[in-house]
Amino acid sequence: MIAVDDVRRAAGVLEGVAHRTPVIASRTLGEHISLKPENLQRSGSFKFRGAYNKVSSLPPGTPLVAFSSGNHAQAVALAARLVGSPATILMPEDAPASKLAATRGYGAEVVTYDRYAGDREAIGAELAAARGAELVRPYDDELIMAGAGTAALELIEDAGAVDTLVVPVGGGGLISGSATAAQALGVRRVVGVEPKAGDDWVRSFAAGHPVVIDVPRTIADGLQTTSPGALTWEVSSQLVDEIVTVTDAQIVEAMRFAFERLKLAIEPSGAVGLAAVRASLVTGGRIGVIVSGGNIDAGRFSELLGV
Amino acid sequence: MIAVDDVRRAAGVLEGVAHRTPVIASRTLGEHISLKPENLQRSGSFKFRGAYNKVSSLPPGTPLVAFSSGNHAQAVALAARLVGSPATILMPEDAPASKLAATRGYGAEVVTYDRYAGDREAIGAELAAARGAELVRPYDDELIMAGAGTAALELIEDAGAVDTLVVPVGGGGLISGSATAAQALGVRRVVGVEPKAGDDWVRSFAAGHPVVIDVPRTIADGLQTTSPGALTWEVSSQLVDEIVTVTDAQIVEAMRFAFERLKLAIEPSGAVGLAAVRASLVTGGRIGVIVSGGNIDAGRFSELLGV
Repeated sequence: MIAVDDVRRAAGVLEGVAHRTPVIASRTLGEHISLKPENLQRSGSFKFRGAYNKVSSLPPGTPLVAFSSGNHAQAVALAARLVGSPATILMPEDAPASKLAATRGYGAEVVTYDRYAGDREAIGAELAAARGAELVRPYDDELIMAGAGTAALELIEDAGAVDTLVVPVGGGGLISGSATAAQALGVRRVVGVEPKAGDDWVRSFAAGHPVVIDVPRTIADGLQTTSPGALTWEVSSQLVDEIVTVTDAQIVEAMRFAFERLKLAIEPSGAVGLAAVRASLVTGGRIGVIVSGGNIDAGRFSELLGV
Repeated sequence: MIAVDDVRRAAGVLEGVAHRTPVIASRTLGEHISLKPENLQRSGSFKFRGAYNKVSSLPPGTPLVAFSSGNHAQAVALAARLVGSPATILMPEDAPASKLAATRGYGAEVVTYDRYAGDREAIGAELAAARGAELVRPYDDELIMAGAGTAALELIEDAGAVDTLVVPVGGGGLISGSATAAQALGVRRVVGVEPKAGDDWVRSFAAGHPVVIDVPRTIADGLQTTSPGALTWEVSSQLVDEIVTVTDAQIVEAMRFAFERLKLAIEPSGAVGLAAVRASLVTGGRIGVIVSGGNIDAGRFSELLGV
């Protein structure tokens, strides 16, 4: 189990390296709602926080391997470049073009695989062993979880107070770090949001243990995990109060709202918390919502919005 | 002529009312370039700064009339609501749907006219006289100019230092306030940017006096002015070093860059400064660029980008 001190330590590591993204409100959305736009974070998502916290803990020059549907890839690639370590990233061959290009742009070597056929954990472990590299896991790592939790720490501090914290859930790195910070800072309720088609967390909470589902077909490409992580489940099963789900249509509506009213480009996975709030699936006092990422190209954005 | 004290006074009026928008940088763009994203300002553009500075100087309840291609409309509508004054806004009938809707959404009455036929100044003056209302001009007013200049004041302060300031130019309200602040804060060079199809400022600088052109056909709907204002010309002809122009294609490229790399939704008029920097039309030390607005709907965005 991580503790709030781990999150605070990560905040120290990230100071001056990660952006302290702003906290924003919108009258249309409701002034009791504060958003933390991590699409404005370096590498375009909150993933940079955990990746840098992890990568900077290793000796400079350590070869790194990571597997990721996209945002963790870019985050590790950027963190590796900043600390001067070589990185190889294993990405699904159907990952968004902008994510593949950005990862290569940060100087990492990209190796692709078929996400509906290959077992990325096995391929990643093999690749790491073959290259004598350190595997940087996307979420099931205490330094990654603690780093991710700094997003919630900043949100709660900068919003003044938060009663209910709303967090996207994929593997659970962001929500376990965030719930750890939230508990220590007096937040009353932590709500996770996942795509309806990929409800592994809802099922796991119902079963009382991690449940494995098939790779979900959802537009939220960053939340296509099939099961909670072992470490993230350990934390989140204790500290998270509820998981709600949103449809792809609700995600698209939130993306349109973010563009037209907030003037922000956000990706489907990043929009699930906002979608839940927009659909009134979450209520309760002052609400803080993490908008977790914005890595989407303009063509895909238009296609999803049908404009 | 306004002075920097007018801009500082406006900053005091706007404190706690306007957002202090962040100053952001992008490694891809170049770390010597700082952007001021006024698309994140209340009402979606820098126009709120001038409008509130003006409207709040009048007795509460004063009936207001404004004419605008869009952003000034929303700004006056919001400022009027905040101070409790009724507003009537004269807008071109082909203004973007999102701008018409937002203006009505702030509680203003909207009256439309044909921008290629009607003389908006005459119609606006008539409307104001008929209703016993105060006409809130879009740029040619010292309180509007001073209010707009607070965007540059914040940019220069928050960026640490700026050698070259890049500002979109339509009627000249933003650049005259900004150049006034820039001169006082040690900026070496102020560059205005306008659409190539609407080069009234380039022609005016060449002629040495304000020149009137036909209504320009450009995607930058907020910069379709036909001539510098009298007051804005008085200031800008003395303090602005150069005017450069950008094509509609360069504007679109900047909008795509803002979306995909900065995660920001910006409108064509708001993008001209970024377009000039992206096209290397402006160089010179540490560059500060005002991104002036983001009021564009997703459909129009997609159409312009051809995605």
